[in-house]
Amino acid sequence: MEIVFVGAGRVATHLAKALYAGGHRITAVYSRTITSAEALAGEVHATPSNRIDALPEKADVFILSVKDSVLKDVISELRKGREQQVFLHTAGSIPMSVFGEHQHCGVFYPMQTFSKEKAVDFSRVHIFIEGRDAGTLDLARKVAETLSANVHELSSSERRYLHLAAVFACNFANHCYALSAQILEAHGLPFESMLPLIRETAEKVETVHPREAQTGPAARRDENVMDAQKALLADNPQMQQIYDIMSKSIIETLNSND
Amino acid sequence: MEIVFVGAGRVATHLAKALYAGGHRITAVYSRTITSAEALAGEVHATPSNRIDALPEKADVFILSVKDSVLKDVISELRKGREQQVFLHTAGSIPMSVFGEHQHCGVFYPMQTFSKEKAVDFSRVHIFIEGRDAGTLDLARKVAETLSANVHELSSSERRYLHLAAVFACNFANHCYALSAQILEAHGLPFESMLPLIRETAEKVETVHPREAQTGPAARRDENVMDAQKALLADNPQMQQIYDIMSKSIIETLNSND
Repeated sequence: MEIVFVGAGRVATHLAKALYAGGHRITAVYSRTITSAEALAGEVHATPSNRIDALPEKADVFILSVKDSVLKDVISELRKGREQQVFLHTAGSIPMSVFGEHQHCGVFYPMQTFSKEKAVDFSRVHIFIEGRDAGTLDLARKVAETLSANVHELSSSERRYLHLAAVFACNFANHCYALSAQILEAHGLPFESMLPLIRETAEKVETVHPREAQTGPAARRDENVMDAQKALLADNPQMQQIYDIMSKSIIETLNSND
Repeated sequence: MEIVFVGAGRVATHLAKALYAGGHRITAVYSRTITSAEALAGEVHATPSNRIDALPEKADVFILSVKDSVLKDVISELRKGREQQVFLHTAGSIPMSVFGEHQHCGVFYPMQTFSKEKAVDFSRVHIFIEGRDAGTLDLARKVAETLSANVHELSSSERRYLHLAAVFACNFANHCYALSAQILEAHGLPFESMLPLIRETAEKVETVHPREAQTGPAARRDENVMDAQKALLADNPQMQQIYDIMSKSIIETLNSND
């Protein structure tokens, strides 16, 4: 297929490279910043551009992977002269309705966290697709299936909960790592020593439900340890509050599961 | 070395099996519950017992791996006739002072989360040791080095912070997974779809500091998405509070790092 990428950030970069490697042709890459467009275009043998009006008028699909806050404006500009083209956006948190009156539109949400530094194995990624019309849905599925066997159709309304769940499992879990690092660094201890524990905790839930896998002072209802640990956080009221509410929530989750 | 295990729970089981595989001799295993003692003893060719007074009077080291709440009482009973023996406990959250006047005592804390279901690769685990006297510290180091190249001496006072950091990185991260599962299950979505994201998030911090690795609505200061996600949690005030405080904490962490 011929694909135009509107956006050259982390998601666009990983996705464009994976689709290129999967045999698709990336004809053009847009970014507001020409150096970003050039960097990605160079990797997938596409034409870079920092002007939406200079993009091809036709492609099998236009994949929009830009900041949530500018998506609406980008759609409105991209539509001019491309009213009959197929547009897909990649934002987990934005409903399909962002496309307004554009007919052939849909969503292509690869549920993964993408960083500049690290390659992503798309074959393990679950991709959630949606289409306003059957043709767009079918096209989104075809593109997705070149990358992953885990392709699911999901409405915008349900995708809100998926994205919320991802914020807990990914963003908040990562912040727990960051708080852990902060505690360690304040005491000259190496964050590196925490890595086997982090890895094991993540791997464990591949075979054991996280409710069953829960360990620690709160899971043991060990008030002595919890009180002592809260006291260690006396100089950081916010971290102390996080300790407190997470512990309470662990206890309630286990109680309700008993 | 000849080792007696006092305790046959998860930590004791993984540790005894790893030490046995590493060439040590486990002479006896105690558990209050004889079937637990027998189960572990059977795996490491030791003598099971549910009576502390029936344990050997001598060994190179007695490893105490029992519930935090009963550790003090178990030490006091084990000491009788074994005043000159070497005792090590495995509890991250308990200071060495729990041994009272016992002379040859120390701590052997393998920082990992252990589950019944899953084998643990000790070579990746960081082990934190402490000894009241040089001989005990030396012995703890020798035992630890048969399992892992990552052996660190750490005082009880500093270990409190290490353990606290582990609660954040492991217990609280796992609870984030549990909350994610709860959201997914309430909407008929498979928790399994979250696993590649969980794995990637954990692996990423092996090469990128968690503060740098932070993504998501809070990291983007995207108030629209945060407000919308909080609204989705309206029927669960506690989860909403967790969402709120974690998001604030992410923003403050990134601000202080800018």
